[in-house]
Amino acid sequence: MSSEIVIGIDLGGTHVRAGAFTSNGEMLAVQETPIEAARGPEPGLRRIQNLIEAIWNASGAKMLLGIGVGSTGPIDPIHGMINNPFTLPGWENVPISAWLRNAFDVPVALENDADVAALGEYWRGAGQSIQRLYAVTVGTGVGTALILDGQIYRGMDGLHPEGGHVILDPSGPPCYCGAHGCWESLCAGPAIARQARQADLHHSILLEMAGGDVEKIDARLVAEAARLGDPPACAIIDKTAHYFSLGIINVIHSITPEMIVLGGGVMKSADLFLPHLSKAIAAHSIMIPAHRVRIAPAQLGNYAGLYGAAYTIWSTIK
Amino acid sequence: MSSEIVIGIDLGGTHVRAGAFTSNGEMLAVQETPIEAARGPEPGLRRIQNLIEAIWNASGAKMLLGIGVGSTGPIDPIHGMINNPFTLPGWENVPISAWLRNAFDVPVALENDADVAALGEYWRGAGQSIQRLYAVTVGTGVGTALILDGQIYRGMDGLHPEGGHVILDPSGPPCYCGAHGCWESLCAGPAIARQARQADLHHSILLEMAGGDVEKIDARLVAEAARLGDPPACAIIDKTAHYFSLGIINVIHSITPEMIVLGGGVMKSADLFLPHLSKAIAAHSIMIPAHRVRIAPAQLGNYAGLYGAAYTIWSTIK
Repeated sequence: MSSEIVIGIDLGGTHVRAGAFTSNGEMLAVQETPIEAARGPEPGLRRIQNLIEAIWNASGAKMLLGIGVGSTGPIDPIHGMINNPFTLPGWENVPISAWLRNAFDVPVALENDADVAALGEYWRGAGQSIQRLYAVTVGTGVGTALILDGQIYRGMDGLHPEGGHVILDPSGPPCYCGAHGCWESLCAGPAIARQARQADLHHSILLEMAGGDVEKIDARLVAEAARLGDPPACAIIDKTAHYFSLGIINVIHSITPEMIVLGGGVMKSADLFLPHLSKAIAAHSIMIPAHRVRIAPAQLGNYAGLYGAAYTIWSTIK
Repeated sequence: MSSEIVIGIDLGGTHVRAGAFTSNGEMLAVQETPIEAARGPEPGLRRIQNLIEAIWNASGAKMLLGIGVGSTGPIDPIHGMINNPFTLPGWENVPISAWLRNAFDVPVALENDADVAALGEYWRGAGQSIQRLYAVTVGTGVGTALILDGQIYRGMDGLHPEGGHVILDPSGPPCYCGAHGCWESLCAGPAIARQARQADLHHSILLEMAGGDVEKIDARLVAEAARLGDPPACAIIDKTAHYFSLGIINVIHSITPEMIVLGGGVMKSADLFLPHLSKAIAAHSIMIPAHRVRIAPAQLGNYAGLYGAAYTIWSTIK
């Protein structure tokens, strides 16, 4: 049993998860609870406090040395503020770092969820000791992060760059970001589901898989149907993989990292995308030896954010 | 008169230029000569040696402390090798750093030309003391560079990322890089000239401006004709500016620098592009406050590479 721990928090739009970690990255305990964000930040913060107390207890550790929080953004890491009315409705200017610091009298760090997921993979996952690690998380959206020598790369004013909104095809669908055909609008889960719902499904097994309700078709079902050879599903996955590959080629040309880690729900079907990606990389290797960039599936799954949140506070207090 | 100098070299496909610099960035003398690359690296290196001796003499300085070289790439900065059969025909595996080190017994640094141009703007141009400075050079190609805290950002194995080959529209023209519709294929000088040569020029002044020879139409002429309100020229500049803006929006989303410096021959007509750019930035400011990213024309013109080459060796020996 370890006598000193930090706690990593992964705050998403529906759930909050907490893990207790030793300094060498051993996860001693993990728990999660619904966040019920719409009830407002005050009850949400109390819920997080209770979760921290429970997980500290469960870990059996004497000392809590710090708390790291990875949150769905936008967030302000410098002032420790969540400002996210999009996926955490009502959470505007929420001083979560100050609140937890007061509650537990320990240092608190707040980072963007895509950044902590990448940091987790750097600390204990697929990207260990990779000097320039890029992470792409494909789920409800497309999140990106760049880890340089184990540090989060930040843009102007400490902002988190939004590589998922890089434009890949200006004739593509509109996105809430203001662009047409950005990476997210072409490749995220909802983009895959939308295409399936709008497709001619007369000769497809998709509708049957969705219990006859077209609204129940999601990206996971499309991937499953594609695995079974369903033609409309295969066509949608092919098109998505084509665009996904352009996004990766753009990362290689603009950032040229040693490794790109692929995570998120949609990338649980990474095997469906990789053949297209290999072909695209072979066809775009003239300026940069793109084939030397390692493409790796994320290893920590849903826990990457917890590991990264813990790492961000461990590296602060060490 | 300064007693100690470094010499910055800017090696291009047609000319080589040298400047003598004091440690605070004063350029004491500058000269240039054709490189005649096709005669091979051996005569080329001797020509560079003679140019260095001439400029050292002209500067009146006693001590030469180092030589910085910015060269058209691909180059290997770690081993000081030029490996560029494209714009320096016959220059494959040329150990320019070792050669100059032998000749002058001083430290020598070799960097990519886009990187040194950006460093020059950081040292003495538009980007002074900018923490995250991105530079886009639009001429025969589109070159990019990222300067972080005054250091060149390097990719895997020290490679220079090729942001000019980021794909902006997969239905665009083919590029030698393997892509369709990369930034360079849509916005570099040759792309502008090609569109004009292929346009219906019956009611255009372009052909007259080119002395009746369609092959003499270049990007500079198209910009001039657009300034005069020539409809085909205006249409081409508008389309180019549209794509150029997408390239900048992508830099803002993926890198989020404080400033983007625009240089190169085509950007001498930056005023024709900036109205489009402002509109695009206003339309894509939801995820990142893009309007806060400063867009600035390069200030050092053709000398940016010289300044940057000098800076790279000054910062090594200091």
